[in-house]
Amino acid sequence: MKGRRLSEPFWKTSISKVEPNKIIVRGYNLMDLVGKYSYAGLTYLLWRGELPSDQQSRMMDALLSVCIEHSLNSPSVDAVRFVASCGVPLQSAVSAGVAAFGDWHGGTIEEAAKLLQEGVKTAEVDKQSLQTAAERMLGEYSKRKEKLPRYGHPTHTVDPRTKKLLEIAEQTRLQGRHVEFAKILESLTRKFFERHLILNVDGCIAAIISDMGFDWRIGKGFFIVSRAPGLVAHAYEQMYSEKPYKAARWDEVVYTGRPERKVSDD
Amino acid sequence: MKGRRLSEPFWKTSISKVEPNKIIVRGYNLMDLVGKYSYAGLTYLLWRGELPSDQQSRMMDALLSVCIEHSLNSPSVDAVRFVASCGVPLQSAVSAGVAAFGDWHGGTIEEAAKLLQEGVKTAEVDKQSLQTAAERMLGEYSKRKEKLPRYGHPTHTVDPRTKKLLEIAEQTRLQGRHVEFAKILESLTRKFFERHLILNVDGCIAAIISDMGFDWRIGKGFFIVSRAPGLVAHAYEQMYSEKPYKAARWDEVVYTGRPERKVSDD
Amino acid sequence: MKGRRLSEPFWKTSISKVEPNKIIVRGYNLMDLVGKYSYAGLTYLLWRGELPSDQQSRMMDALLSVCIEHSLNSPSVDAVRFVASCGVPLQSAVSAGVAAFGDWHGGTIEEAAKLLQEGVKTAEVDKQSLQTAAERMLGEYSKRKEKLPRYGHPTHTVDPRTKKLLEIAEQTRLQGRHVEFAKILESLTRKFFERHLILNVDGCIAAIISDMGFDWRIGKGFFIVSRAPGLVAHAYEQMYSEKPYKAARWDEVVYTGRPERKVSDD
Amino acid sequence: MKGRRLSEPFWKTSISKVEPNKIIVRGYNLMDLVGKYSYAGLTYLLWRGELPSDQQSRMMDALLSVCIEHSLNSPSVDAVRFVASCGVPLQSAVSAGVAAFGDWHGGTIEEAAKLLQEGVKTAEVDKQSLQTAAERMLGEYSKRKEKLPRYGHPTHTVDPRTKKLLEIAEQTRLQGRHVEFAKILESLTRKFFERHLILNVDGCIAAIISDMGFDWRIGKGFFIVSRAPGLVAHAYEQMYSEKPYKAARWDEVVYTGRPERKVSDD
Repeated sequence: MKGRRLSEPFWKTSISKVEPNKIIVRGYNLMDLVGKYSYAGLTYLLWRGELPSDQQSRMMDALLSVCIEHSLNSPSVDAVRFVASCGVPLQSAVSAGVAAFGDWHGGTIEEAAKLLQEGVKTAEVDKQSLQTAAERMLGEYSKRKEKLPRYGHPTHTVDPRTKKLLEIAEQTRLQGRHVEFAKILESLTRKFFERHLILNVDGCIAAIISDMGFDWRIGKGFFIVSRAPGLVAHAYEQMYSEKPYKAARWDEVVYTGRPERKVSDD
Repeated sequence: MKGRRLSEPFWKTSISKVEPNKIIVRGYNLMDLVGKYSYAGLTYLLWRGELPSDQQSRMMDALLSVCIEHSLNSPSVDAVRFVASCGVPLQSAVSAGVAAFGDWHGGTIEEAAKLLQEGVKTAEVDKQSLQTAAERMLGEYSKRKEKLPRYGHPTHTVDPRTKKLLEIAEQTRLQGRHVEFAKILESLTRKFFERHLILNVDGCIAAIISDMGFDWRIGKGFFIVSRAPGLVAHAYEQMYSEKPYKAARWDEVVYTGRPERKVSDD
Repeated sequence: MKGRRLSEPFWKTSISKVEPNKIIVRGYNLMDLVGKYSYAGLTYLLWRGELPSDQQSRMMDALLSVCIEHSLNSPSVDAVRFVASCGVPLQSAVSAGVAAFGDWHGGTIEEAAKLLQEGVKTAEVDKQSLQTAAERMLGEYSKRKEKLPRYGHPTHTVDPRTKKLLEIAEQTRLQGRHVEFAKILESLTRKFFERHLILNVDGCIAAIISDMGFDWRIGKGFFIVSRAPGLVAHAYEQMYSEKPYKAARWDEVVYTGRPERKVSDD
Repeated sequence: MKGRRLSEPFWKTSISKVEPNKIIVRGYNLMDLVGKYSYAGLTYLLWRGELPSDQQSRMMDALLSVCIEHSLNSPSVDAVRFVASCGVPLQSAVSAGVAAFGDWHGGTIEEAAKLLQEGVKTAEVDKQSLQTAAERMLGEYSKRKEKLPRYGHPTHTVDPRTKKLLEIAEQTRLQGRHVEFAKILESLTRKFFERHLILNVDGCIAAIISDMGFDWRIGKGFFIVSRAPGLVAHAYEQMYSEKPYKAARWDEVVYTGRPERKVSDD
């Protein structure tokens, strides 16, 4: 094969550059940052392109910490443990868990952040108070008989993670109009949905990252990173403390299909 | 960026070539084969580089069919269904199931094929009968107190898939010394392990693909392709006939860790 | 822990049932089918719940065969080969490839099948000819300046797979109003989009499976199963014929981010 | 289906417990820890079962930070970007990247940690100095003509990450005999392998986590968590700043297989 002339490189990225003995992230030498910024702070740099303030670093650390573990009552952890029981390397089990972070498992952060960002923006454009915008929004949900995403929780009546995050958002003064809007929505749930629906952790993360200026489309990233150490812990426990090849018990599976039948000989 | 001269292409492959309006697989125009060869026959072409005979096509079809489904008593299917419940696209759930095909779930085909290929080769090199080679091999396993891979099954006392595959291998005259060796090993299990251990489906696939000339290292490929339609069926059923967000029931999870404790204030 | 009473099983499925020495699929003993029905025919049974006719089996085989391989010019194969170079088991590389079967890579089968099924249904409800319904549909796409999904192809000016599938659909007499509607749409593309757009393979599969009665939401399943043997072949080739740890070449990656900068000491 | 009595729960875990309004991790109420411990510190708790000291938290943060990003010259990032181009949700692309963390991509941390833990243990049991044990170990590698894992690097002649980690390990006084042993091995590489091989970042992480008391089998966990934010950043950039459906360029793929041939008509 002869030499060829190519006009442009196959890949381009604004995230990082690697040279011999040097790793540049968003313009900074990564080694100048390690030890000075936390892992959570560096995550902010990777996703936003700029270094965080001390307050932003602290908030990032809390955002990545509150969801770090939620036991086997998560589909992702169940998937991790079944895969981990099959004689696979650690990362295979973790990758199956990450695949489970769909629209109904962590993905609601994105949906909620989109809703809050649109709500706050609409209020600005229409020169309405957040209270008025919230009432209008809930009126529409109620009329369409839709659920308000990220309000209510199957297990927690008060989501302890929401409370903790709001405390830290207040201490770091990073809360703004999106958090305010989220709280107004919560206060109106009884009026529009006949019972009080709590602002759960997904909705709260959504509100805070919106106030921090994040694009709603990176919302799932917070959940992925947050849960990674827990997925690793469960894969490890399954691989080294439990028996191999775990599968559903016979008596837990019921066949609801066609009764037994013969193949006709035609 | 200026033009550059590159001396060699980034990728090379002997599998296929795509040109406008033409897809070449192993030298053949794929469209000349579709309709004439079955999907199973084309799988043989992809993996071996040559077209199968009618007998080989028939055997391939049986090899890919016997494991096509085994219900939720498979860790891969359990993983698929948990992931499928999370609001993800179909392929995400299937990919999590494929990740589960480890050393103890389908992967044993490779281990067994390696063992059979080594056993038959050793017999040839040492000019021993297969019977003698089998006795020697089992003697070593027994001495090391190791299990013989792919003999015995947790559910089936006679693996119906083994029976069916051996029938077709006989009809297609594709059985040879590896199948013979596998049967001798089975016949000796009572002598060496104190109870009769059946040749299960993984071991039987291993024996037949060895007789067909496959490298043992592609053994898992048979299981992956075989199970793919079943994984799709389970993902689809979970997504469209069941409720979203399936997770382990509270009463099925027991915490065995440290009792509750306080964080010290130091 | 004391015994507990549970009122209902954790899992239910209409797909299959496993008992000692017996595997029931959709009511049939799987071993009664192997050898009599092809793998492609059993895939039909798994997904539809009924056994296929000979014609349906033949069509299924063609549907699963035409896309069986498309070389490295597929993102899924590129992903497979990078992962396969990292020292992972075969199935890990394949699972990464399956994860790539998104809305723009195989997933268009679903989008196109949905469109065709809606188009044909609308024509029936409105008692219009397919021609009229097609003109109306394209008028709307054209007005919204949207692309018509599954018409046109980046590489092929005549998709050889479409031609082959339509031949077999005609031979098996499985083509019906959805194929007809798809052809009418193709014939109208020049009028509405200023250039002729071919019915590509995804659109053609969509039309045929719609005529066979498949739900559009299982469309991706055809692509997943079809490509599985090719993904296995590429993973195997990368693992055993190429050097480990393949990564993008330095000169193929351009950094477009912030210029190098110092961390301020505040 | 009648009620059933089950004697033991399906799952058990020592990692965490979830109750209404309370999440217990390793015995602690997670909300008592968030804000007080960093994400990196909580990762220590999850993996070790005990809370870290300030020094251990600081070391964990550095261990998770140094590998946080290495651009597209990583197979995992290449896989992420191909998958992300296909119209999939963010987590699917990330899961494909995690699947790539095999024995040659992050997995070497485990291999190196195993080697260092065995070396130091052997020295203790045999009452040898680390110097003697290292010479003996390298002698064996050299005799078997094997490479010493985690010495040398394809890009860096001095791995800047190793330097930074050793600094912090010294400041936190967490370095011990495993780090010492790793340095002795490095100093002996010229003698045994004819050129100086640097202790690279995988080997350095391996040494430090061994001194911190981690099981070598959780070594990959450090790499998985470390790289997660970078994988998210690359998936996001590919999805929202680049064109869909990225595949290898035609001129970068060379077909090395059988020349074109006809199907014989027999």
